[in-house]
Amino acid sequence: MEKMMNVQALLELLERRDLHALRAALLEENEVDIAEFLEELPQDKIVVVFRALPKEMAAEVFSNLEADTQQVIIQSATDQEVSAIVEELYVDDAVDMLEELPANVVKRVLKAARPDTRKLINQFLNYPDNSVGSIMTAEFTDLKQSMTVSQAIAHIRRTGENSESVYTCYVTDAGRRLEGVLTIKELLLAQDEQLIADLMETDVITAETTEDQEEAVARMMKYDFISLPVVDKEGRLVGIVTVDDVMDVMEEEATEDFEKMAAMAPSEKPYLKTSVLSLAKHRILWLLVLMISGMITGGILGQYEAAFAAMPLLVTFIPMLTDTGGNAGSQSSTLVIRGMAVGEIQLKDFAKVFWKELRVSMLVGVVLSAVNFVRLIITYPGNYMVALTVALALFVTVMLAKTVGGVLPMAAKLCHADPAIMAAPLITTIVDAISLVVYFRIACTLLPI
Amino acid sequence: MEKMMNVQALLELLERRDLHALRAALLEENEVDIAEFLEELPQDKIVVVFRALPKEMAAEVFSNLEADTQQVIIQSATDQEVSAIVEELYVDDAVDMLEELPANVVKRVLKAARPDTRKLINQFLNYPDNSVGSIMTAEFTDLKQSMTVSQAIAHIRRTGENSESVYTCYVTDAGRRLEGVLTIKELLLAQDEQLIADLMETDVITAETTEDQEEAVARMMKYDFISLPVVDKEGRLVGIVTVDDVMDVMEEEATEDFEKMAAMAPSEKPYLKTSVLSLAKHRILWLLVLMISGMITGGILGQYEAAFAAMPLLVTFIPMLTDTGGNAGSQSSTLVIRGMAVGEIQLKDFAKVFWKELRVSMLVGVVLSAVNFVRLIITYPGNYMVALTVALALFVTVMLAKTVGGVLPMAAKLCHADPAIMAAPLITTIVDAISLVVYFRIACTLLPI
Repeated sequence: MEKMMNVQALLELLERRDLHALRAALLEENEVDIAEFLEELPQDKIVVVFRALPKEMAAEVFSNLEADTQQVIIQSATDQEVSAIVEELYVDDAVDMLEELPANVVKRVLKAARPDTRKLINQFLNYPDNSVGSIMTAEFTDLKQSMTVSQAIAHIRRTGENSESVYTCYVTDAGRRLEGVLTIKELLLAQDEQLIADLMETDVITAETTEDQEEAVARMMKYDFISLPVVDKEGRLVGIVTVDDVMDVMEEEATEDFEKMAAMAPSEKPYLKTSVLSLAKHRILWLLVLMISGMITGGILGQYEAAFAAMPLLVTFIPMLTDTGGNAGSQSSTLVIRGMAVGEIQLKDFAKVFWKELRVSMLVGVVLSAVNFVRLIITYPGNYMVALTVALALFVTVMLAKTVGGVLPMAAKLCHADPAIMAAPLITTIVDAISLVVYFRIACTLLPI
Repeated sequence: MEKMMNVQALLELLERRDLHALRAALLEENEVDIAEFLEELPQDKIVVVFRALPKEMAAEVFSNLEADTQQVIIQSATDQEVSAIVEELYVDDAVDMLEELPANVVKRVLKAARPDTRKLINQFLNYPDNSVGSIMTAEFTDLKQSMTVSQAIAHIRRTGENSESVYTCYVTDAGRRLEGVLTIKELLLAQDEQLIADLMETDVITAETTEDQEEAVARMMKYDFISLPVVDKEGRLVGIVTVDDVMDVMEEEATEDFEKMAAMAPSEKPYLKTSVLSLAKHRILWLLVLMISGMITGGILGQYEAAFAAMPLLVTFIPMLTDTGGNAGSQSSTLVIRGMAVGEIQLKDFAKVFWKELRVSMLVGVVLSAVNFVRLIITYPGNYMVALTVALALFVTVMLAKTVGGVLPMAAKLCHADPAIMAAPLITTIVDAISLVVYFRIACTLLPI
């Protein structure tokens, strides 16, 4: 059950400016809920409530705020307050914040930070977007081989306050090179006098700072890790990726795929926060490309003008034919694109996918054509040849659509392009053109036109 | 970096039947990798290697195997071996396995389990699909308010071996009712003599066994939890949901949405493991529904037969017009459906979405229409009125498509239907019908037909 926050009571305390009682009430709430509460307040009230927060909650609440709310707070805070916030934040959260802020505010924040924090932040800001380095955090639990279990536990109890995840401990040598790993569970279950060197797992699965974040996420999912150590080119431990970041990446990547597959340029911002102009920009390029392809289809259709001038009835089946082709194709392409995204389908499965789609399409095609044939005979009694034309064209369309839809995403991958490009819209356009040619070829053969 | 397994060496040891060396070599590998290795072997070899596994690895490897491989092992194992596997598995993994096995094998497994394990498994099997109960695990760390920190740590060190996650500790009363929560980090950072009662957080965020798993996942993501306690109707702690299950659910749910949005019935099995018949069954219903809707569009088109008989050129613009409408609409519906799935867009944002889509569609519509107008004037010089007809129809189509596409998923939600139903295929079909009527109405007004 989600705990309901007593928003009304908080607002009343705020109204009465009883900051002491407000502070006490906030202490009872979860930081994520407080952040949500702040988002709903007018700008001047945001600052008042934020200042009333107990110091130990402020950074956590701050890291859960939207970028524009963070900016409001930073802009009305003193240099000392800014410094306190930055030092309390985990480096990855601080970097996320800075990436969203305008340049002058970033300057001020960096100036307020301590030199070592500033150096760390600058280093993180240099990792490319979507790299492992850009999502990792610099705080982790660092043990030495020579420690005993009780020394290690004492070490964690002394230093653990600064590490985002104490659940997995990493063992490094004097040169910060990663030597081993053990979980806090293994540590707790061991005997006090055992040596870390004897307990740790030495075959450590890691990620590199420059690797794609998606690969690190896939690795964590595969091994069910709650954190993954990140090393630089020299094998030195520089940070860890924690599972909460992984969940965010998973959600982002899925959203990106949804956008690409609906023929949009992927956007970083949530829908309601994106401007109309930027939404339009993200959509128009693909619409233009596909519109121009649609014109080509129209050109093909133009070559059969004589046919549908002689028999206008033929035109009325076009929407049903092209829509069904598009839908049949996008079913196949969606399954294959998703299968590749989650790593289930690989390039070596090309023949398997083709053969599967061929058989599925024949099954589906037969059923759809039969339904169509019967329906046409009932609606247009006597017009057997028209019914046969439409049914045959539909069968061929479904077969082509499904095999093309299943195979093109893999072909894209083979050419090192993003398979998601071969989603519904493009498949539909391709299948449209083919199915219309097939339809009119069959019509010209079977019908007296 | 993913560690490469020395598959060749393992195969050689297997070939030489040197089980002792094989066992030693396997001990060096990760359980997930061993499971992958087993999947590639022929059936008889699977059993040999599985038997060679050190006992403490066997259950972990087993839970990472595909259902059909698990079945091979269970069927060739003695009752005693089956019992050992079941007792070692976490209850949620055991239940996942049983759900995939044929009834006679399930019976055998349950017979081999200890009575209390059997009772627990039976209880878990009764939770409905997609409920929180179906993904939770029964093993967790259970503390009492009266314990001191050092007693609690000693308790965990004594009993922790059985709990899937020791990272968050739950505090219960004598009646197993959940009273509080604290992380192992908080426990380690506290003083030895402090009381659990004074350290624990009492406002616990929980899930109920019968709740939808998606809600529990959303809650864990919101609060960045690595486990969530699950209570029954009486508030008694019955299990926890761990973050690895959450990642699996997230991936499943996204896949389901992809499937629904491409007009398919969602399937539980991965693509390559699904039979042709079952794939066809999942696809055909929606194709039929949409095909019949396409026929209605054809019927509408039939009413304008006179128009395109008089001017066949009009027909050649139909694919461009309907495709662009479909694409424009599916862009909007995809963004809104996804926004609702991740909780960013709520029903109260209805007016905001409508207003945003209206403005975006006007921008996009103007650009597309202008490009089209210019192109038509170049291709068909002198035919100004045809160019104007197509450009106008395109503008209206894009506007309708985007507003309808943005608003219909929210309307579906309002009627307690799944918003994903209003994805590309259905929006395309709806927009097709409207845009054709608009097109021919404009044509009949502006052109001499």
